[in-house]
Amino acid sequence: MSRRNEILDRAGELFSTRGFHATSMRDLAEAVGLQGGSLYAHIASKEDLLFEIVNKAADAFLRQAELVPRDLEPEARLRALVRGHLEVIVRELPRAKVFFDEWRFLSQDYQRRIKERRDAYEAYFRETIATGIAQGLFPQQDARLASLFVLSALNWVYQWYHPDGPLGLEALSEQYANLILAALRNARPEPIAAPGSGS
Amino acid sequence: MSRRNEILDRAGELFSTRGFHATSMRDLAEAVGLQGGSLYAHIASKEDLLFEIVNKAADAFLRQAELVPRDLEPEARLRALVRGHLEVIVRELPRAKVFFDEWRFLSQDYQRRIKERRDAYEAYFRETIATGIAQGLFPQQDARLASLFVLSALNWVYQWYHPDGPLGLEALSEQYANLILAALRNARPEPIAAPGSGS
Repeated sequence: MSRRNEILDRAGELFSTRGFHATSMRDLAEAVGLQGGSLYAHIASKEDLLFEIVNKAADAFLRQAELVPRDLEPEARLRALVRGHLEVIVRELPRAKVFFDEWRFLSQDYQRRIKERRDAYEAYFRETIATGIAQGLFPQQDARLASLFVLSALNWVYQWYHPDGPLGLEALSEQYANLILAALRNARPEPIAAPGSGS
Repeated sequence: MSRRNEILDRAGELFSTRGFHATSMRDLAEAVGLQGGSLYAHIASKEDLLFEIVNKAADAFLRQAELVPRDLEPEARLRALVRGHLEVIVRELPRAKVFFDEWRFLSQDYQRRIKERRDAYEAYFRETIATGIAQGLFPQQDARLASLFVLSALNWVYQWYHPDGPLGLEALSEQYANLILAALRNARPEPIAAPGSGS
Protein backbone atom coordinates (compact mmCIF):
# COMPACT_ATOMS: atom_id res chain seq x y z
CA MET A 1 0.00 0.00 0.00
CA SER A 2 1.33 3.45 -0.85
CA ARG A 3 2.10 5.81 2.01
CA ARG A 4 -0.72 8.03 0.82
CA ASN A 5 -3.28 5.22 0.90
CA GLU A 6 -2.01 4.20 4.31
CA ILE A 7 -2.60 7.76 5.56
CA LEU A 8 -6.11 7.73 4.09
CA ASP A 9 -6.93 4.42 5.77
CA ARG A 10 -5.56 5.44 9.18
CA ALA A 11 -7.32 8.80 8.95
CA GLY A 12 -10.58 7.02 8.09
CA GLU A 13 -10.24 4.84 11.18
CA LEU A 14 -9.39 7.77 13.46
CA PHE A 15 -12.14 10.03 12.10
CA SER A 16 -14.68 7.22 12.36
CA THR A 17 -13.92 6.46 16.00
CA ARG A 18 -12.90 9.81 17.53
CA GLY A 19 -14.59 12.12 15.05
CA PHE A 20 -12.97 14.58 12.64
CA HIS A 21 -12.69 17.47 15.08
CA ALA A 22 -11.23 15.39 17.88
CA THR A 23 -8.51 13.93 15.65
CA SER A 24 -5.42 16.10 15.40
CA MET A 25 -2.76 16.02 12.70
CA ARG A 26 -0.42 14.93 15.48
CA ASP A 27 -2.65 11.91 16.25
CA LEU A 28 -2.59 11.02 12.59
CA ALA A 29 1.17 11.46 12.23
CA GLU A 30 1.64 9.15 15.22
CA ALA A 31 -0.71 6.55 13.75
CA VAL A 32 1.31 6.36 10.53
CA GLY A 33 4.70 6.77 12.19
CA LEU A 34 5.62 10.15 10.73
CA GLN A 35 6.68 13.43 12.28
CA GLY A 36 3.79 15.92 12.30
CA GLY A 37 5.49 18.13 9.73
CA SER A 38 6.26 15.33 7.25
CA LEU A 39 2.56 14.57 6.95
CA TYR A 40 2.20 17.77 4.94
CA ALA A 41 4.39 16.28 2.22
CA HIS A 42 1.50 13.87 1.58
CA ILE A 43 -1.63 15.91 2.27
CA ALA A 44 -2.55 19.59 2.12
CA SER A 45 -4.79 19.79 5.18
CA LYS A 46 -6.96 17.76 7.52
CA GLU A 47 -10.04 18.97 5.66
CA ASP A 48 -8.66 17.85 2.28
CA LEU A 49 -8.09 14.47 3.82
CA LEU A 50 -11.69 14.36 5.05
CA PHE A 51 -12.91 15.31 1.60
CA GLU A 52 -10.83 12.61 -0.01
CA ILE A 53 -12.17 9.92 2.35
CA VAL A 54 -15.78 11.03 1.92
CA ASN A 55 -15.33 11.29 -1.83
CA LYS A 56 -13.87 7.79 -2.05
CA ALA A 57 -16.91 6.49 -0.19
CA ALA A 58 -19.14 8.33 -2.69
CA ASP A 59 -17.11 6.64 -5.48
CA ALA A 60 -17.74 3.26 -3.92
CA PHE A 61 -21.51 3.76 -3.59
CA LEU A 62 -21.84 5.17 -7.12
CA ARG A 63 -19.70 2.42 -8.64
CA GLN A 64 -22.02 -0.23 -7.18
CA ALA A 65 -25.10 1.53 -8.55
CA GLU A 66 -23.52 1.91 -12.00
CA LEU A 67 -22.78 -1.82 -12.06
CA VAL A 68 -26.48 -2.70 -11.87
CA PRO A 69 -27.71 -3.45 -15.42
CA ARG A 70 -30.15 -0.83 -16.69
CA ASP A 71 -32.38 -3.43 -18.34
CA LEU A 72 -33.21 -5.38 -15.19
CA GLU A 73 -36.80 -5.38 -14.00
CA PRO A 74 -37.39 -2.84 -11.19
CA GLU A 75 -37.55 -5.49 -8.45
CA ALA A 76 -34.34 -7.23 -9.51
CA ARG A 77 -32.72 -3.84 -9.97
CA LEU A 78 -33.70 -2.71 -6.49
CA ARG A 79 -32.48 -5.99 -5.03
CA ALA A 80 -29.09 -5.37 -6.70
CA LEU A 81 -28.98 -1.77 -5.49
CA VAL A 82 -29.69 -2.92 -1.92
CA ARG A 83 -26.95 -5.54 -2.20
CA GLY A 84 -24.45 -2.98 -3.56
CA HIS A 85 -25.21 -0.44 -0.84
CA LEU A 86 -24.80 -2.97 1.94
CA GLU A 87 -21.62 -4.29 0.37
CA VAL A 88 -19.98 -0.85 0.62
CA ILE A 89 -21.03 -0.50 4.26
CA VAL A 90 -19.96 -4.00 5.24
CA ARG A 91 -16.64 -3.97 3.36
CA GLU A 92 -15.62 -0.39 4.06
CA LEU A 93 -17.15 0.29 7.43
CA PRO A 94 -14.76 3.02 8.70
CA ARG A 95 -14.99 4.92 5.41
CA ALA A 96 -18.77 4.59 5.37
CA LYS A 97 -18.94 5.91 8.94
CA VAL A 98 -16.91 8.95 7.98
CA PHE A 99 -19.10 9.41 4.91
CA PHE A 100 -22.28 9.47 7.00
CA ASP A 101 -21.08 11.07 10.24
CA GLU A 102 -18.38 13.53 9.32
CA TRP A 103 -19.22 14.93 5.90
CA ARG A 104 -21.12 17.79 7.54
CA PHE A 105 -17.80 19.15 8.79
CA LEU A 106 -16.61 19.79 5.23
CA SER A 107 -16.55 23.38 3.99
CA GLN A 108 -19.56 24.57 1.97
CA ASP A 109 -17.83 24.02 -1.34
CA TYR A 110 -16.77 20.46 -0.56
CA GLN A 111 -20.20 19.73 0.91
CA ARG A 112 -21.86 20.88 -2.31
CA ARG A 113 -19.68 18.54 -4.36
CA ILE A 114 -20.56 15.59 -2.13
CA LYS A 115 -24.23 16.56 -2.06
CA GLU A 116 -24.36 16.39 -5.87
CA ARG A 117 -22.96 12.87 -5.79
CA ARG A 118 -25.38 11.81 -3.01
CA ASP A 119 -28.26 13.19 -5.07
CA ALA A 120 -27.08 11.28 -8.15
CA TYR A 121 -26.86 8.13 -6.06
CA GLU A 122 -30.30 8.57 -4.50
CA ALA A 123 -31.73 9.06 -7.99
CA TYR A 124 -30.87 5.44 -8.85
CA PHE A 125 -33.17 4.30 -6.06
CA ARG A 126 -35.90 6.87 -6.70
CA GLU A 127 -36.05 6.19 -10.43
CA THR A 128 -36.12 2.44 -9.96
CA ILE A 129 -39.00 2.79 -7.49
CA ALA A 130 -40.79 5.24 -9.81
CA THR A 131 -40.48 2.74 -12.67
CA GLY A 132 -41.95 0.04 -10.43
CA ILE A 133 -44.87 2.33 -9.58
CA ALA A 134 -45.42 3.19 -13.25
CA GLN A 135 -45.44 -0.50 -14.18
CA GLY A 136 -47.99 -1.26 -11.47
CA LEU A 137 -45.59 -3.46 -9.50
CA PHE A 138 -45.77 -1.15 -6.52
CA PRO A 139 -49.13 0.41 -5.70
CA GLN A 140 -49.49 4.12 -6.22
CA GLN A 141 -47.33 5.89 -3.67
CA ASP A 142 -44.92 8.75 -3.28
CA ALA A 143 -41.69 7.60 -4.99
CA ARG A 144 -39.66 10.22 -3.16
CA LEU A 145 -40.87 9.22 0.30
CA ALA A 146 -40.55 5.54 -0.59
CA SER A 147 -36.92 6.02 -1.67
CA LEU A 148 -36.17 8.02 1.49
CA PHE A 149 -37.63 5.13 3.49
CA VAL A 150 -35.50 2.59 1.66
CA LEU A 151 -32.29 4.61 1.90
CA SER A 152 -32.95 5.37 5.57
CA ALA A 153 -33.25 1.69 6.36
CA LEU A 154 -30.05 1.04 4.39
CA ASN A 155 -27.94 3.93 5.63
CA TRP A 156 -28.39 3.27 9.33
CA VAL A 157 -26.89 -0.21 8.98
CA TYR A 158 -23.41 1.29 9.53
CA GLN A 159 -24.54 2.10 13.08
CA TRP A 160 -25.23 -1.45 14.18
CA TYR A 161 -23.46 -3.79 11.77
CA HIS A 162 -20.56 -5.76 13.26
CA PRO A 163 -18.28 -7.43 10.71
CA ASP A 164 -17.55 -10.15 13.28
CA GLY A 165 -21.23 -10.73 14.06
CA PRO A 166 -23.32 -13.70 12.88
CA LEU A 167 -24.94 -11.86 9.97
CA GLY A 168 -22.94 -12.03 6.74
CA LEU A 169 -23.38 -9.72 3.77
CA GLU A 170 -25.43 -12.24 1.76
CA ALA A 171 -27.96 -13.02 4.49
CA LEU A 172 -28.24 -9.37 5.47
CA SER A 173 -28.77 -8.28 1.85
CA GLU A 174 -31.37 -10.92 1.16
CA GLN A 175 -33.41 -10.24 4.29
CA TYR A 176 -33.18 -6.49 3.80
CA ALA A 177 -34.22 -6.77 0.13
CA ASN A 178 -37.14 -9.03 1.12
CA LEU A 179 -38.36 -6.50 3.68
CA ILE A 180 -37.95 -3.58 1.26
CA LEU A 181 -39.70 -5.28 -1.64
CA ALA A 182 -42.50 -6.49 0.64
CA ALA A 183 -42.96 -2.89 1.80
CA LEU A 184 -43.06 -1.43 -1.71
CA ARG A 185 -45.33 -4.12 -3.17
CA ASN A 186 -47.87 -3.96 -0.39
CA ALA A 187 -47.96 -0.50 1.16
CA ARG A 188 -51.32 1.12 0.56
CA PRO A 189 -52.95 3.93 2.45
CA GLU A 190 -55.09 2.39 5.17
CA PRO A 191 -58.76 2.88 4.41
CA ILE A 192 -60.15 4.77 7.36
CA ALA A 193 -63.28 2.96 8.48
CA ALA A 194 -66.11 5.46 8.64
CA PRO A 195 -68.14 4.81 11.81
CA GLY A 196 -71.47 3.27 10.89
CA SER A 197 -70.62 2.87 7.22
CA GLY A 198 -71.46 -0.56 5.97
CA SER A 199 -68.80 -0.70 3.24
CA MET B 1 -37.84 29.40 30.32
CA SER B 2 -35.27 28.98 33.08
CA ARG B 3 -31.71 30.00 32.35
CA ARG B 4 -30.69 26.38 32.66
CA ASN B 5 -33.22 25.21 30.07
CA GLU B 6 -32.18 28.04 27.79
CA ILE B 7 -28.56 26.87 28.04
CA LEU B 8 -29.65 23.30 27.24
CA ASP B 9 -31.62 24.42 24.19
CA ARG B 10 -28.85 26.64 22.81
CA ALA B 11 -26.27 23.93 23.44
CA GLY B 12 -28.50 21.43 21.63
CA GLU B 13 -28.67 23.74 18.61
CA LEU B 14 -24.91 24.39 18.57
CA PHE B 15 -23.95 20.75 19.08
CA SER B 16 -26.41 19.67 16.37
CA THR B 17 -25.04 22.08 13.75
CA ARG B 18 -21.33 22.41 14.56
CA GLY B 19 -20.83 19.19 16.48
CA PHE B 20 -19.89 18.72 20.11
CA HIS B 21 -16.13 18.98 19.65
CA ALA B 22 -16.29 22.09 17.50
CA THR B 23 -18.49 23.96 19.99
CA SER B 24 -16.53 25.72 22.72
CA MET B 25 -17.82 26.87 26.10
CA ARG B 26 -17.07 30.37 24.82
CA ASP B 27 -19.41 29.84 21.80
CA LEU B 28 -22.09 28.67 24.18
CA ALA B 29 -21.60 31.55 26.62
CA GLU B 30 -21.95 33.98 23.71
CA ALA B 31 -25.11 32.26 22.46
CA VAL B 32 -26.81 32.69 25.83
CA GLY B 33 -25.32 36.10 26.59
CA LEU B 34 -23.15 35.12 29.54
CA GLN B 35 -19.48 35.53 30.30
CA GLY B 36 -17.59 32.26 29.81
CA GLY B 37 -16.95 31.88 33.52
CA SER B 38 -20.56 32.47 34.60
CA LEU B 39 -21.65 29.47 32.56
CA TYR B 40 -20.06 27.24 35.16
CA ALA B 41 -22.58 28.48 37.73
CA HIS B 42 -25.17 26.58 35.66
CA ILE B 43 -23.35 23.55 34.34
CA ALA B 44 -20.39 21.47 35.50
CA SER B 45 -18.77 20.77 32.14
CA LYS B 46 -19.43 20.59 28.41
CA GLU B 47 -19.64 16.82 28.66
CA ASP B 48 -22.26 16.95 31.43
CA LEU B 49 -24.25 19.24 29.20
CA LEU B 50 -23.99 16.74 26.33
CA PHE B 51 -25.10 13.95 28.63
CA GLU B 52 -28.08 15.97 29.82
CA ILE B 53 -29.21 16.72 26.24
CA VAL B 54 -28.80 13.12 25.11
CA ASN B 55 -30.52 11.86 28.24
CA LYS B 56 -33.48 14.20 27.74
CA ALA B 57 -33.84 12.85 24.21
CA ALA B 58 -33.79 9.32 25.64
CA ASP B 59 -36.52 10.43 28.10
CA ALA B 60 -38.61 11.70 25.21
CA PHE B 61 -38.33 8.47 23.17
CA LEU B 62 -39.02 6.27 26.20
CA ARG B 63 -41.98 8.38 27.32
CA GLN B 64 -43.61 7.93 23.90
CA ALA B 65 -43.11 4.18 24.02
CA GLU B 66 -44.48 3.94 27.56
CA LEU B 67 -47.61 5.81 26.47
CA VAL B 68 -48.56 3.07 24.00
CA PRO B 69 -51.16 0.83 25.68
CA ARG B 70 -49.83 -2.65 26.42
CA ASP B 71 -53.08 -4.33 25.40
CA LEU B 72 -53.12 -3.08 21.80
CA GLU B 73 -52.79 -5.62 19.00
CA PRO B 74 -49.20 -5.80 17.66
CA GLU B 75 -50.00 -3.90 14.45
CA ALA B 76 -51.77 -1.05 16.21
CA ARG B 77 -49.03 -1.03 18.82
CA LEU B 78 -46.31 -0.80 16.18
CA ARG B 79 -48.20 1.96 14.39
CA ALA B 80 -48.29 3.91 17.68
CA LEU B 81 -44.58 3.28 18.34
CA VAL B 82 -43.74 4.56 14.83
CA ARG B 83 -45.89 7.65 15.41
CA GLY B 84 -44.24 8.33 18.80
CA HIS B 85 -40.72 7.93 17.44
CA LEU B 86 -41.34 10.30 14.54
CA GLU B 87 -43.03 12.78 16.85
CA VAL B 88 -39.88 13.10 18.95
CA ILE B 89 -37.71 13.60 15.84
CA VAL B 90 -40.08 16.10 14.23
CA ARG B 91 -40.77 18.12 17.38
CA GLU B 92 -37.29 18.04 18.91
CA LEU B 93 -35.05 17.91 15.88
CA PRO B 94 -31.88 19.51 17.32
CA ARG B 95 -32.04 17.32 20.42
CA ALA B 96 -32.66 14.23 18.31
CA LYS B 97 -29.67 15.11 16.11
CA VAL B 98 -27.43 15.39 19.15
CA PHE B 99 -28.85 12.11 20.46
CA PHE B 100 -27.95 10.28 17.25
CA ASP B 101 -24.78 12.09 16.14
CA GLU B 102 -22.97 13.15 19.29
CA TRP B 103 -23.67 10.55 21.93
CA ARG B 104 -20.55 8.63 20.89
CA PHE B 105 -18.46 11.49 22.30
CA LEU B 106 -19.70 10.81 25.84
CA SER B 107 -17.35 9.13 28.27
CA GLN B 108 -17.63 5.36 28.66
CA ASP B 109 -19.70 5.63 31.82
CA TYR B 110 -22.23 8.05 30.32
CA GLN B 111 -22.33 6.01 27.11
CA ARG B 112 -23.20 2.90 29.10
CA ARG B 113 -26.10 4.69 30.81
CA ILE B 114 -27.47 5.87 27.47
CA LYS B 115 -26.91 2.47 25.88
CA GLU B 116 -29.07 0.85 28.58
CA ARG B 117 -31.88 3.26 27.79
CA ARG B 118 -31.52 2.73 24.03
CA ASP B 119 -31.68 -1.02 24.59
CA ALA B 120 -34.82 -0.65 26.71
CA TYR B 121 -36.37 1.48 23.97
CA GLU B 122 -35.45 -0.94 21.18
CA ALA B 123 -36.99 -3.76 23.22
CA TYR B 124 -40.44 -2.14 22.79
CA PHE B 125 -40.10 -2.57 19.03
CA ARG B 126 -38.49 -5.99 19.13
CA GLU B 127 -41.06 -7.44 21.55
CA THR B 128 -43.99 -6.03 19.60
CA ILE B 129 -42.63 -7.56 16.39
CA ALA B 130 -41.92 -10.85 18.19
CA THR B 131 -45.52 -10.93 19.44
CA GLY B 132 -46.74 -10.33 15.87
CA ILE B 133 -44.58 -13.22 14.65
CA ALA B 134 -45.82 -15.50 17.45
CA GLN B 135 -49.44 -14.65 16.58
CA GLY B 136 -48.86 -15.43 12.90
CA LEU B 137 -49.49 -11.83 11.81
CA PHE B 138 -45.97 -11.54 10.46
CA PRO B 139 -44.48 -14.55 8.69
CA GLN B 140 -41.66 -16.35 10.44
CA GLN B 141 -38.64 -14.08 10.43
CA ASP B 142 -35.83 -12.85 12.62
CA ALA B 143 -37.45 -10.43 15.11
CA ARG B 144 -34.10 -8.85 15.90
CA LEU B 145 -33.21 -8.09 12.29
CA ALA B 146 -36.77 -6.93 11.59
CA SER B 147 -36.63 -4.49 14.51
CA LEU B 148 -33.22 -3.22 13.40
CA PHE B 149 -34.69 -2.65 9.94
CA VAL B 150 -37.65 -0.75 11.37
CA LEU B 151 -35.55 1.37 13.73
CA SER B 152 -33.03 2.08 10.99
CA ALA B 153 -35.75 3.41 8.71
CA LEU B 154 -37.09 5.52 11.60
CA ASN B 155 -33.82 6.83 13.01
CA TRP B 156 -32.45 8.19 9.75
CA VAL B 157 -35.45 10.51 9.35
CA TYR B 158 -33.63 13.16 11.42
CA GLN B 159 -31.15 13.40 8.53
CA TRP B 160 -33.61 14.50 5.86
CA TYR B 161 -36.73 15.79 7.62
CA HIS B 162 -37.37 19.52 7.24
CA PRO B 163 -39.92 20.95 9.65
CA ASP B 164 -40.83 23.56 7.01
CA GLY B 165 -41.20 20.98 4.23
CA PRO B 166 -44.49 19.72 2.78
CA LEU B 167 -44.62 16.53 4.82
CA GLY B 168 -46.33 16.92 8.20
CA LEU B 169 -45.98 14.55 11.13
CA GLU B 170 -49.34 12.84 10.50
CA ALA B 171 -48.76 12.11 6.82
CA LEU B 172 -45.18 11.03 7.45
CA SER B 173 -46.21 8.72 10.30
CA GLU B 174 -49.03 7.14 8.34
CA GLN B 175 -46.95 6.47 5.22
CA TYR B 176 -44.03 5.19 7.26
CA ALA B 177 -46.27 2.89 9.30
CA ASN B 178 -47.90 1.60 6.10
CA LEU B 179 -44.51 0.76 4.61
CA ILE B 180 -43.28 -0.88 7.82
CA LEU B 181 -46.40 -2.99 8.34
CA ALA B 182 -46.43 -3.99 4.67
CA ALA B 183 -42.81 -5.13 5.06
CA LEU B 184 -43.45 -7.15 8.22
CA ARG B 185 -46.68 -8.76 6.98
CA ASN B 186 -45.28 -9.83 3.64
CA ALA B 187 -41.54 -10.43 3.88
CA ARG B 188 -40.76 -14.05 3.22
CA PRO B 189 -37.53 -15.63 2.09
CA GLU B 190 -37.58 -15.77 -1.71
CA PRO B 191 -37.88 -19.37 -2.87
CA ILE B 192 -34.89 -19.96 -5.09
CA ALA B 193 -36.15 -21.52 -8.32
CA ALA B 194 -34.26 -24.73 -8.98
CA PRO B 195 -33.27 -24.85 -12.65
CA GLY B 196 -35.41 -27.37 -14.48
CA SER B 197 -37.77 -27.92 -11.55
CA GLY B 198 -41.37 -27.75 -12.62
CA SER B 199 -42.72 -26.38 -9.36
